[in-house]
Amino acid sequence: MSNSFGNIFRLTTFGESHGVAIGGIVDGMPAGVEIDTDFIQHQLDRRRPGQSAIVTSRNEADRVEILSGVINGVSTGTPIAFEVRNTNQRSNDYDNMAHTYRPSHADMTYDAKYGLRDHRGGGRSSARETIARVVGGALAMFALRPAGVEIYAYTRSVGDISLPSSGIYPPDHIEENIVRCPDPDTAVRMIELIKQVKSEGDTIGGIVEGVIKGCPAGLGEPVFDKLHSMLGAAMLSINAAKGFEYGMGFAGSRMRGSEAIDIFSTTPSGRITTLSNHSGGIQGGISNGNDIDFRVAFKPVATLLKDVATVTDEGAPTTLRAKGRHDPCVVARAVPVVEAMAAMTILDAWLLNQTTRLSFDR
Amino acid sequence: MSNSFGNIFRLTTFGESHGVAIGGIVDGMPAGVEIDTDFIQHQLDRRRPGQSAIVTSRNEADRVEILSGVINGVSTGTPIAFEVRNTNQRSNDYDNMAHTYRPSHADMTYDAKYGLRDHRGGGRSSARETIARVVGGALAMFALRPAGVEIYAYTRSVGDISLPSSGIYPPDHIEENIVRCPDPDTAVRMIELIKQVKSEGDTIGGIVEGVIKGCPAGLGEPVFDKLHSMLGAAMLSINAAKGFEYGMGFAGSRMRGSEAIDIFSTTPSGRITTLSNHSGGIQGGISNGNDIDFRVAFKPVATLLKDVATVTDEGAPTTLRAKGRHDPCVVARAVPVVEAMAAMTILDAWLLNQTTRLSFDR
Amino acid sequence: MSNSFGNIFRLTTFGESHGVAIGGIVDGMPAGVEIDTDFIQHQLDRRRPGQSAIVTSRNEADRVEILSGVINGVSTGTPIAFEVRNTNQRSNDYDNMAHTYRPSHADMTYDAKYGLRDHRGGGRSSARETIARVVGGALAMFALRPAGVEIYAYTRSVGDISLPSSGIYPPDHIEENIVRCPDPDTAVRMIELIKQVKSEGDTIGGIVEGVIKGCPAGLGEPVFDKLHSMLGAAMLSINAAKGFEYGMGFAGSRMRGSEAIDIFSTTPSGRITTLSNHSGGIQGGISNGNDIDFRVAFKPVATLLKDVATVTDEGAPTTLRAKGRHDPCVVARAVPVVEAMAAMTILDAWLLNQTTRLSFDR
Amino acid sequence: MSNSFGNIFRLTTFGESHGVAIGGIVDGMPAGVEIDTDFIQHQLDRRRPGQSAIVTSRNEADRVEILSGVINGVSTGTPIAFEVRNTNQRSNDYDNMAHTYRPSHADMTYDAKYGLRDHRGGGRSSARETIARVVGGALAMFALRPAGVEIYAYTRSVGDISLPSSGIYPPDHIEENIVRCPDPDTAVRMIELIKQVKSEGDTIGGIVEGVIKGCPAGLGEPVFDKLHSMLGAAMLSINAAKGFEYGMGFAGSRMRGSEAIDIFSTTPSGRITTLSNHSGGIQGGISNGNDIDFRVAFKPVATLLKDVATVTDEGAPTTLRAKGRHDPCVVARAVPVVEAMAAMTILDAWLLNQTTRLSFDR
Repeated sequence: MSNSFGNIFRLTTFGESHGVAIGGIVDGMPAGVEIDTDFIQHQLDRRRPGQSAIVTSRNEADRVEILSGVINGVSTGTPIAFEVRNTNQRSNDYDNMAHTYRPSHADMTYDAKYGLRDHRGGGRSSARETIARVVGGALAMFALRPAGVEIYAYTRSVGDISLPSSGIYPPDHIEENIVRCPDPDTAVRMIELIKQVKSEGDTIGGIVEGVIKGCPAGLGEPVFDKLHSMLGAAMLSINAAKGFEYGMGFAGSRMRGSEAIDIFSTTPSGRITTLSNHSGGIQGGISNGNDIDFRVAFKPVATLLKDVATVTDEGAPTTLRAKGRHDPCVVARAVPVVEAMAAMTILDAWLLNQTTRLSFDR
Repeated sequence: MSNSFGNIFRLTTFGESHGVAIGGIVDGMPAGVEIDTDFIQHQLDRRRPGQSAIVTSRNEADRVEILSGVINGVSTGTPIAFEVRNTNQRSNDYDNMAHTYRPSHADMTYDAKYGLRDHRGGGRSSARETIARVVGGALAMFALRPAGVEIYAYTRSVGDISLPSSGIYPPDHIEENIVRCPDPDTAVRMIELIKQVKSEGDTIGGIVEGVIKGCPAGLGEPVFDKLHSMLGAAMLSINAAKGFEYGMGFAGSRMRGSEAIDIFSTTPSGRITTLSNHSGGIQGGISNGNDIDFRVAFKPVATLLKDVATVTDEGAPTTLRAKGRHDPCVVARAVPVVEAMAAMTILDAWLLNQTTRLSFDR
Repeated sequence: MSNSFGNIFRLTTFGESHGVAIGGIVDGMPAGVEIDTDFIQHQLDRRRPGQSAIVTSRNEADRVEILSGVINGVSTGTPIAFEVRNTNQRSNDYDNMAHTYRPSHADMTYDAKYGLRDHRGGGRSSARETIARVVGGALAMFALRPAGVEIYAYTRSVGDISLPSSGIYPPDHIEENIVRCPDPDTAVRMIELIKQVKSEGDTIGGIVEGVIKGCPAGLGEPVFDKLHSMLGAAMLSINAAKGFEYGMGFAGSRMRGSEAIDIFSTTPSGRITTLSNHSGGIQGGISNGNDIDFRVAFKPVATLLKDVATVTDEGAPTTLRAKGRHDPCVVARAVPVVEAMAAMTILDAWLLNQTTRLSFDR
Repeated sequence: MSNSFGNIFRLTTFGESHGVAIGGIVDGMPAGVEIDTDFIQHQLDRRRPGQSAIVTSRNEADRVEILSGVINGVSTGTPIAFEVRNTNQRSNDYDNMAHTYRPSHADMTYDAKYGLRDHRGGGRSSARETIARVVGGALAMFALRPAGVEIYAYTRSVGDISLPSSGIYPPDHIEENIVRCPDPDTAVRMIELIKQVKSEGDTIGGIVEGVIKGCPAGLGEPVFDKLHSMLGAAMLSINAAKGFEYGMGFAGSRMRGSEAIDIFSTTPSGRITTLSNHSGGIQGGISNGNDIDFRVAFKPVATLLKDVATVTDEGAPTTLRAKGRHDPCVVARAVPVVEAMAAMTILDAWLLNQTTRLSFDR
């Protein structure tokens, strides 16, 4: 169960960092949706290593192959399987880690759980697994787009450098800089900070913000599968995530009810809306038609390019110096992963919501 | 699917605020566990309204009845059903709300989703549903206790008043004050603030911190069902929750890797441990044996005891003045709910982990 | 997981034969469906003991109470919980069985699985659990009826006495006799046989046939959740079921393709249909719009009213003589259970099928 | 959900007959199990077309490639993905069927469900999908073997030719003949019948019997997921299956209780067993330690090598003459598929049963 995501639209992923391939199966893709393989590859390119000076220099092409479920560019309703073969592996970089536990990585916990592990490049715990999420997310976007749902994400902060406004930013400038920050001036400062941290062999954390526009009212199941619970679980499952909040989030814990509630209003056309959006587009676990916004906190990457004290799997002290190529900050590459998880969550909620009332049309 | 929680240990809940009863079924309770009905009732008493001056004055007895699954005080492995009959209903308090949308409540979104709703006291969206969670959590605790797992929660902050230390607090003083804050001095200030807010007909938010001690290494499924994803989904599903973080949380987004990583060490007895616990007891989604700590942000209650502008379900402007009895701050009563959701999450992860390797013993 | 049935429309049941109550929760009931409590009770009355001379003489009223999910006679989309309190318990009848294994019952296997069991009246393994299925099935029928789906079942055979025709019988005469056989002459012979078997302290098996009319084409998921797989699992989960077949069934294993295929034809109105229905209304796991028919084989009840050699739970030889009141043949009371399981299966498939294509209407 | 099988050990399959590949992902494989790729290929060879004179002459090599989840020949506990590339496709054979509905195939029902279909070779509805099941089953066998569980199947009947005894046959002679019948004399007659039917351009049905030896007592969940319900759903999901029975099966519907019950006995070593096995190794849905036996009825293949009247997808009359290479009888190739589904069912039940009681050992 651990490797599947979603109820109706369900992605199951496989693959280790240095195995044969990374990939997955999407079950529950609605039939009749147009599939644009170029867009899938485009999203993978936004995620891939080696794309800029502030991410890892590993240069993996990450070419996706679709194996099933599509005919003449249209989904058939049967499972869509896909894979990305691993090519640029330097497994020897990891020979010294076969019996060494990297601090704040999953080496020790995998051993505790399974009794053995694939140590090469982190094996299954590698963020390379997110390749499959990005493909799944692109597929979900194909289904959501005709409905007018727009999903995007951007970097809100890197270390102490944060966007000047707490509100939602438009998507226009995000892809104009390599850190994917919607404010050009802030982007310059973020990039400088990441380069400096990298030059010191260190890493740094950051916050990614996600935005969902055009989501209709009514999505989300109101008790345990609240829309924000499903979004939260989705985001927290991304490697290095340490926190999730939506709408007013943690700041809401310091507010009074009289300043936090969203007063209703009626538009000239008669549609009920709200004067503010502290709720972040979700009330009682169900979307209300407003913009949905949320933030995901990412810790600094645990692999440092400097000597680190650690222990072997037998508890003996040793020193570790990573030889691989690693990211000084994950947020730029996490942006398309956040978008992908959001898209799959919304489509799944949409499909679940089609069962809320009985339709006799089909 | 919306009303079930968990994979192996699975709680399914039912009931509306002003319906016949609130209750649930626990499926997957291991056989042979001792069940202490008094403790279940004790936990319900910690959650119930009317218990102190800073919570709602509704005085509901909330007596639980076990309907199945237990014989001679021991679980049989079959479903444990339970119910709490609703008794102290003042449904008339809500007559004026049948066609009025309360701001930042689920009235409008339920209508959007289902086309109708039970408007009495919030119906299914009422926090009265958490009764079932507290019972489910108590049952989970019965299974976990013999293994030495200890779970508790407390109030970290109310509005701007917060615990002085960012570390984990021991459980000793929590139940000594009505706000369930482990620091007596801070508790006094929190209680004063809540009373003042209440006197103004207003409400205020806060943060609850949860702690899990004695959890063995190896729990959690490493990709989509990471232990912290499951904990996060559990906590975010509690009414009024706006955010979740674990370990270093959002603060980790501002840290450098060199200060954030948890360096391994070996105890004199040969056990591998870490010198710090920024990871919050979870690495790569799997518990590492350290204390697990997390925080849940709750927004201020949306029901104010003052006139509030709103609209009817047809969009006409109106004014709402709540007649019911409501909480000025949810955190004190949220503490046992947080504990309950944590207990069910950990037990479910434990049971799932029993399938990670094949045992031929039974 | 063992006590839930269905994916979207999901019934979870609880209760032991001699516990406090039998009941369940239906999650996923579509909103806006009219609920007729009298019909639910009517279905329970068709299932209940003591209704005729050929079933057990236990006279249980089995009054159902709905606890949630319905307002003003209409489903709200939230869970519908219900219970039937156990009243006419003669637990003392079972005192002699606390440590005795009844042959071909679940006593020994429950002990093997759980390490303990509720021995009173079979505990959880009692067919009394099917009360909850009948209620769940009635709820499903409320949702299906407006769509024109008609579901019924009848007794095809008792021992060697079988209906003269292999085709589907109309529902007209089923309720006119106590064995629920649609052919009055055959019914007389069946009833005679059951009375004779009963007089000998023995029991006898039989076959129940189920029919689903008006099911639209397109229901069923084509690989593992084929419509007939879901129907088969549903029927095989009924107590005492030993086999399931649909359409031509086992007889099809003796046929040639040239006699077994259903040749297509076009009706004057242009609808595609078939000249025969060996497929039983399902092709490739998906309904084709024809009548769906299936048969369920029930073994003879294992409780005999005569001395039976057996062993204790420690393996010592002993003799058992049942004191309770038991059915000489289950088929008459199994008919409403078969109908209920069919109704829940079809509604669940219908709801799942609403996610096959994406609808932007809601 | 349609393309996944199992709860803990879960196989998700993908692929169309004439697409890029057929394959799947096994999630929930226990860690530390030895994987023998040669045995997987051996099982695929038993399933593959072209293996003998009585199966289709399509000569597909069906070479399996493992993509993940195995290191140094041992399972790691992470998903095992695998694929078989399609090579010997003669898609042109199907050009004439793009708009023609083959009788008793899934062409019409797929169109009804999805609004479009991959018509080449049956697309997703092709029995070629069972490749993935055979691989999944082989993986399950690797986990079960060290526990002493032995699973096999054989042909019980072809048309009217059936095994002389109704009892369980040993596995010894099954692979000595191409129809996989354990009785050599009966095998000769079955093969003659199939050849004759084939020479007439016709097809014929049959029954496959499955046997599970060495299954411990306690497997199976006692209400909806009874062991025989799970086995039944598994078997009925195989292409062309029309019926399932276990133990005394349909014959039990004609028996009296006094002849059907399995009287308990105690072995000299003190183990409780039964004098007969009408229950088929399962009582109350839970295995009792005896041999489990069941039978699956397969209809005759619907593709005839002769002219068949049918209609187009617009309802116009037409004539169909299959050009592909097809099986005159599926049973010989169904045998390894039945074994595979049984192995996955038993392993899944075993793993589920590890959660029935709480173990504090790990």
